[in-house]
Formats: sequence, structure tokens, C-alpha cells
Amino acid sequence: MFITVHEVGPRDGLQNEAAAVPTSDKVAFVDRLSGAGLSAIEVSAFVRPDRIPQLADAEDVFARITRRAGTRYAALVPNMNGLTRARAAGVQDVAIFAAASETFGRRNINQSIDESLVAYADVVAEARHQGCRVRGYLSTAFGCPFEGDVPVARVVGLTKRLFEMGVDEVAISDTIGVAHPGQVAAMLTTLVGEFTAKPLALHFHDTRGTALANVLRALDFGITTFDSSAGGLGGCPYAPGATGNLATEDLLYMLHGLGLDTGVDLAQVVSASRAIEPIIGHALPSRYVQATARTVPGGSRA
Amino acid sequence: MFITVHEVGPRDGLQNEAAAVPTSDKVAFVDRLSGAGLSAIEVSAFVRPDRIPQLADAEDVFARITRRAGTRYAALVPNMNGLTRARAAGVQDVAIFAAASETFGRRNINQSIDESLVAYADVVAEARHQGCRVRGYLSTAFGCPFEGDVPVARVVGLTKRLFEMGVDEVAISDTIGVAHPGQVAAMLTTLVGEFTAKPLALHFHDTRGTALANVLRALDFGITTFDSSAGGLGGCPYAPGATGNLATEDLLYMLHGLGLDTGVDLAQVVSASRAIEPIIGHALPSRYVQATARTVPGGSRA
Repeated sequence: MFITVHEVGPRDGLQNEAAAVPTSDKVAFVDRLSGAGLSAIEVSAFVRPDRIPQLADAEDVFARITRRAGTRYAALVPNMNGLTRARAAGVQDVAIFAAASETFGRRNINQSIDESLVAYADVVAEARHQGCRVRGYLSTAFGCPFEGDVPVARVVGLTKRLFEMGVDEVAISDTIGVAHPGQVAAMLTTLVGEFTAKPLALHFHDTRGTALANVLRALDFGITTFDSSAGGLGGCPYAPGATGNLATEDLLYMLHGLGLDTGVDLAQVVSASRAIEPIIGHALPSRYVQATARTVPGGSRA
Repeated sequence: MFITVHEVGPRDGLQNEAAAVPTSDKVAFVDRLSGAGLSAIEVSAFVRPDRIPQLADAEDVFARITRRAGTRYAALVPNMNGLTRARAAGVQDVAIFAAASETFGRRNINQSIDESLVAYADVVAEARHQGCRVRGYLSTAFGCPFEGDVPVARVVGLTKRLFEMGVDEVAISDTIGVAHPGQVAAMLTTLVGEFTAKPLALHFHDTRGTALANVLRALDFGITTFDSSAGGLGGCPYAPGATGNLATEDLLYMLHGLGLDTGVDLAQVVSASRAIEPIIGHALPSRYVQATARTVPGGSRA
């Protein structure tokens, strides 16, 4: 079976890194990732440069990457202006970003959930009109840093609204990395029953170490698209070694071990991560990347 | 359902840490772990002090810990001399250490697999005669750093010999952290069919990030005993942030999320790990421990 690994390192990863990354390094990073065979890469976001300076060069990055056949190059667009810029940069795959928590949404984009969805409806309609593929993120779906638990019924309702407004795929996102496999099973029993597995993607953060276990449980429900970030990039804004996004290498190691096809060369993703590591200035949190950096341990270990 | 978390931090963890840990700190560590409710703690090993200086104070540690009703305090014994020392220290739970790989066994204890099992048979018989509970580790069961893959048939055969010589429990151990859930399923289909799930324990290392996914799959096979190390202690002998043993906190977070009972207070295990962290001189690799050290991230994350 083919599993789509949706690489978010260049966007969600770099956005959460403190070091300013030169455009040429971003371009090389994206090209290494596509060269590794990744079929979906989120390259940047067309947001206000003063809001997220790290991604202010979105146009430049898109202009300079080498587009490989078989790879979709996506960008986050927060509004109609972002969509216009993305389209001018030749972007075919766009993503919008909705929250499942009122408080998180308010703090993040200063809108209520409903206000944001009303605004997004026009963006999605226009993107679809222009032939774009549209992904909708549903953040804090497994828990909110301010509100705590998020009811499954709310996630189902918002997913439904996103599909109704025309998004092709909804990425159910565990923004703060609290999800565990029991919660994933409960959530997917309802979501897959309602929408089937095909248009659903899962976006896990490995903050508490449960991301791969969550993927394993989601595979049991037929989910075939998972987000991850090369090296676990983006996980260390505050603490070295701490982790945010599930690392692409860790995900690939497990998927390939399960006999699943991704079309991706794991070693080449490691190379891409290793090349970006000195630029961001700290070790990447991916367990697999760390393991390949060491000599194999011997000695009396059980 | 009750899951036994077999805490190996004080032994397997500290043994692999570079910093010499004072006896009083080990005693406090074990007491904090038993205070957290852990029902099985591997405290030390009665090995030659010149071979593993970190554990040379095994007698002292056992003499000074406060024994809590409901906690089993175990020790590794490599031979009859070790058993004699352990028994003199009042140890009721002993463990022996066999390898599933000839090369690993030769390098580790300078014996063939068969030689080691012949020698262990006497140790196990004597331990059982004295009323001890005996655990047998089967290391490198999922892969060997020198030989690569280890055939399932060999693991089954060696597990059978360990049970035949009288061990109560066999800990199937992924010494180098290469196991993935597909391999766990293949292994357990055979092992559980042969021996039932009850006397089997699983010992995973999180070297490639798959440990919790492996536990999740093992739970599907009815396994009820898992090894882990507080904070992921023992994982960083060579690289900061790199990991060896599955962290107890990460395991507990997932097990409790799944609604499984362990009798352990997660916050108290975190406290035990935090107290040992400055003594070993580096941050512990547990994702959960790292997450609790940070402020909850907000901002525009999917």
C-alpha cells in the first residue's frame, strides 16, 4: 500500500526555528527533499512578512526550486491576498489553517472559529475555481493549550464544514502533541465513519513521544496520508532536544518496516536534514537521525 | 487491565551513564521510584566491580533503600557468585542475561550462547531453590549490531530453553532499538502462540523512535509487562539527546491514555527523573519530561 508522506519541514519546521535561514539554503533543502522522492512538500507560507519573517521569501523560494514531476509543492495561504501571491508564484497546492479551539484561534489569528471559516470559504472557492488542490488544517484537534480537551463532535462538525466549502483534504492536527492512540482510535472511529479515510490526513507532533504509536493506530483505520518534518525540524524553539513535528525519518523507518510503500529514500532525507542542521544551529530531534550519527552501541545492554 | 512497568533506570540506565553517581543519590532515586508506585524496579547488578564501576555499590544500595510493600526490587546476577552476593543483600528477584546473537554474546560476556545457557542453568536452579523469582533477558532479539537480523525461530528456541531451565519471565529485548511494529507482530504471533503472553516481557529501546509503537502493537497481543527507564536514563552515553531505553514517563503517558492501570503516579516519576538529571550531568531524553520542562507552545502551528 502507498502512504503519502506530507513533508512540512520547510514551512511548519523552519517557521518555528529561531535562526534566520537564507533563501538559497531553503531552496537546496526543498530540492534535496524532492530528490529523496517525497510526493508532497509544504514549501512556505504567503503570510505577512512582518508576522513571520522566516517565510518572507516565499516568492523567491518558489521561483528558485527545481520542480520534480511527481512532487506537489504546497503553500499555506491565510487569506485572499496570500492566495493571490501564491498563484502568482505558480503554486497549485494551497492550504488554509483553521482551529478547533476558540481560544487558540483567537490568539493565533484573532478570529473566532466561525469568522475564520467564513473568511476561508471565499479563499477556498477562489482556489478551487483556479484549479488548485486545497488542504485544510484543523489545528488543536486533539487538545488545546488553553481549553484542554476538544470534543470529537466539534472536530467532526468543523471537518464537515471544511469539506463542504470544498477542501480536498483535511489534516487533523495534534498541534501540541498530546494525542495518544486511544484518543486517535476514538476520533477516527467517528471521522472515518463519516468521511472515509481517503480525504483525511493526520498531523502529529511528537512532543510526548506518542506520534508513531498514533500513526500506527491511524493506519489500522485506513489513513494513508501523514504529515512529518525532516529531522523533526521546528521542534526546538525553546529547548534543545525537545520535539515538535513528528520526524520524517522516524515515520519512514516505521512505515518501511511495516512493508508500506512511500516512494521515499530514507537515507536521502537524512542527508537533507544533516545539511540543514548547521544552518539552524542545533541538533535535530529525530531519533533516527540521532541514531545514524552514533556508532552502534555494544556492551552489556538488555 | 493492569500493566506492569518494569523500571530499569537504576541498573540498565545508570550503567550506561558516564558520570559516577554517588550511592546516596541512587538510594534516593530508587526510593522516589518506589514512592511513585512502580511495582518492579531493577536496582543494580552484582557484577565484578572492575567491570562495571558504576554498579560496584550494589550491596550498599540494597542495604539503604526503603523497601515498599508492593514493589519488587530486582538485581542482575551474571553468575553463581553474583547470586550469592545478591542473596546476602536480601534480593528476592534476580535476572540473568542471555543473548540471541552469537557475536553479541561473545563480545559481551565472552561465551557462546550455549555456554552461557549451560552456566546460567545452575544459577537459575539455585535461585529457584532459594525461592527467588527469576527473569531472563534475551538481548538482541530483534537485531544484532554485528549480525543484523535475528531469526524468529532462534528467539523462540532460546526463550523455550530459558523457560525450561526455570525462569519465571523472559524479557524479549530490542537491545539496539531497531524493532518496528511489523517485526513485533511477527515475533509475538509465534512467541505468544508458544508460551502465552503472561510470562513474556518486552524491553524496547527508543533509538529510532519506534518504542511506543512497538508497545502498542505488543498490547494487541496481550503482553502485560514492559520495561522502561525513568527519563529514558541510559540513552546518552555518546550523544546528548540521543536515546536508549524507552522512557518510563513516555510509556506511562501512553498506557494511561489508553485507560490501562499501572499503579504509577506519572508526576512522581518525572520528579525522580528531574532529581537525577543534574547528577548525571545532561538532559534526559524522555519526550514527556522535556515537554513538561517547557511552556506550552502557542502560535500558528498546525
